[in-house]
Amino acid sequence: MTKPIMAVLRGERAAHIPFWYMRQAGRYLPEYRETRAKAGSFLDLCFNSDLAVEVTLQPIRRFKPDAAILFSDILVVPHALGLAVSFREGEGPVVEKVGVDGPLPKFEADLFHARLAPIYRTVAELKRRLAGEVGLIGFAGAPWTVATYMVEGGSSRDFMAVKQWAFAEPESFSRLIDLLTKATIEYLAHQVEAGAEILQVFDSWAGVLPEMAFRAFCTEPMRRITETLKARYPAVPIIGFPRGASALYVDYVRASGVDAVSLDSTVPLSWAAAELQSKVVLQGNLDPQLVVVGGAAMRAEAERILNTLGHGPFIFNLGHGLVPQTPPEHVADLSALIRAWRE
Amino acid sequence: MTKPIMAVLRGERAAHIPFWYMRQAGRYLPEYRETRAKAGSFLDLCFNSDLAVEVTLQPIRRFKPDAAILFSDILVVPHALGLAVSFREGEGPVVEKVGVDGPLPKFEADLFHARLAPIYRTVAELKRRLAGEVGLIGFAGAPWTVATYMVEGGSSRDFMAVKQWAFAEPESFSRLIDLLTKATIEYLAHQVEAGAEILQVFDSWAGVLPEMAFRAFCTEPMRRITETLKARYPAVPIIGFPRGASALYVDYVRASGVDAVSLDSTVPLSWAAAELQSKVVLQGNLDPQLVVVGGAAMRAEAERILNTLGHGPFIFNLGHGLVPQTPPEHVADLSALIRAWRE
Repeated sequence: MTKPIMAVLRGERAAHIPFWYMRQAGRYLPEYRETRAKAGSFLDLCFNSDLAVEVTLQPIRRFKPDAAILFSDILVVPHALGLAVSFREGEGPVVEKVGVDGPLPKFEADLFHARLAPIYRTVAELKRRLAGEVGLIGFAGAPWTVATYMVEGGSSRDFMAVKQWAFAEPESFSRLIDLLTKATIEYLAHQVEAGAEILQVFDSWAGVLPEMAFRAFCTEPMRRITETLKARYPAVPIIGFPRGASALYVDYVRASGVDAVSLDSTVPLSWAAAELQSKVVLQGNLDPQLVVVGGAAMRAEAERILNTLGHGPFIFNLGHGLVPQTPPEHVADLSALIRAWRE
Repeated sequence: MTKPIMAVLRGERAAHIPFWYMRQAGRYLPEYRETRAKAGSFLDLCFNSDLAVEVTLQPIRRFKPDAAILFSDILVVPHALGLAVSFREGEGPVVEKVGVDGPLPKFEADLFHARLAPIYRTVAELKRRLAGEVGLIGFAGAPWTVATYMVEGGSSRDFMAVKQWAFAEPESFSRLIDLLTKATIEYLAHQVEAGAEILQVFDSWAGVLPEMAFRAFCTEPMRRITETLKARYPAVPIIGFPRGASALYVDYVRASGVDAVSLDSTVPLSWAAAELQSKVVLQGNLDPQLVVVGGAAMRAEAERILNTLGHGPFIFNLGHGLVPQTPPEHVADLSALIRAWRE
């Protein structure tokens, strides 16, 4: 019996629309907060396989989505490249800066994978524990998005430092993107070897780049990632998430080689159905704030999404991650609605 | 002799591509910083007609763009509605909060216009001083964008409070949008009476809303603004700027009644040429960070924009405002390039 999410990603029909939620394991769940309290730092939680397995499985028990996604963070890659990465509660991540004038970190495979070994163990243990129809998604940040944190030293509002570098010195910036592309491929390949059945690549800050830079630093690295991984693992579907790519979703879908594309909440549904769904599987795109609201407003929008995209290849998801304020009952309501929907 | 920017906005040809820059009056200019130092708070500067005229004209003297834009801020509207508004250096604005449970401010025309009188005086004085071919642009924030500041109490990263209200209580939220729509119309009408020749409405946070909410809270209020103002002032062109609207630019252009639409930097050029330029005048969309970089990178992208959009109705601008780090020489280089460009 093919798992429903795998069936859809392979272009087959499933008995229902498969679904999962970005950040389905997280602070909105009391059981997550309890487990979180047992770890020291946030990175400790990511690197503690027992705890990471536990928090990955918590939403599976509650909501029975069609996929579990490895609990981790996109910044484990710069960490594994030897940069200092820390998370301060309520302040976002702090990353040791890489700049146009300084040396790039080196990709040393043994060290890199040694640092990430606990994550591969988490994936392997999840694979062992996930019985039945639940797919296992591995993931990484896309090179551009990870680069923004490395160059800005953390989150940013204007992306000034990274854009300055990318625009003023595109050749030198490409070396950083190349390094991250290679590291991302190796990281994802090891997740597949450990048991990941599906991969998602999060380009959360794709939406701040103009067209030409988007093609060079988002689409093209993604094309290399899919090309290399497809050659090694042809059966593993790859989902791309160029958040905020607006009309450039079309270019991304055409050129990146992804099997599916995750839509942010601002992508209009009929446009996505017309321009994208004949080319790839779509995933998305309920606004996470509507899950905080719940009730009739949430249900109406979820139904509109299902009615517009559910007749083609589609995985229901959100347009961004669940937020800490989300009442878990609303997620349960939403899950029941999706499971019951029929064409 | 019709001013070039007016010609283009009326669907006629001009001898060159008209241009101006969002935030062309601002901190990147030493003469602005000097004038700024003479005012107390930022709002004092907006409400001091002599100083506001001076900073509006500073970039006109330097770069000879085709339009001057009134120096002011979108938050003078909540201020004129009686809410406390302040600007703390480096921290962004602080606005007295309006919430779902509290009363809405009342629109009292006499008080409202009395508070905004210095701005109307600035417009009138600018009209008197702007000789020759330079157009005079008045502006306001769009209802949705102004509402985000009023509900969040200032800038926001996630727009949680305002989205919660808009999604959970759309009827009550619509009353806030209606109030702001009315206030915006009255404010813009008075700017026209004082001498504004063109109006631009900035919906800087349009890009955070999903499709249905975008239509209800961005496009529809804009339609009412253009409908009312066009009935009173048919010769005054209106430029809309639904920043980040992505594929929804098409809906906005179709339904809002604007004469021109300003494109943010992420809008792909060939898509805009194909989907939008037959319906409205386009304006945009160089990434302001490229003006910080300057040189060959800036020139290449500016030429690409001109070569793609310059054959149809087009006003050169940026995709967002000039940033304080911009070297004024780069703005001069860019202006010379645009002025020299020919089909």
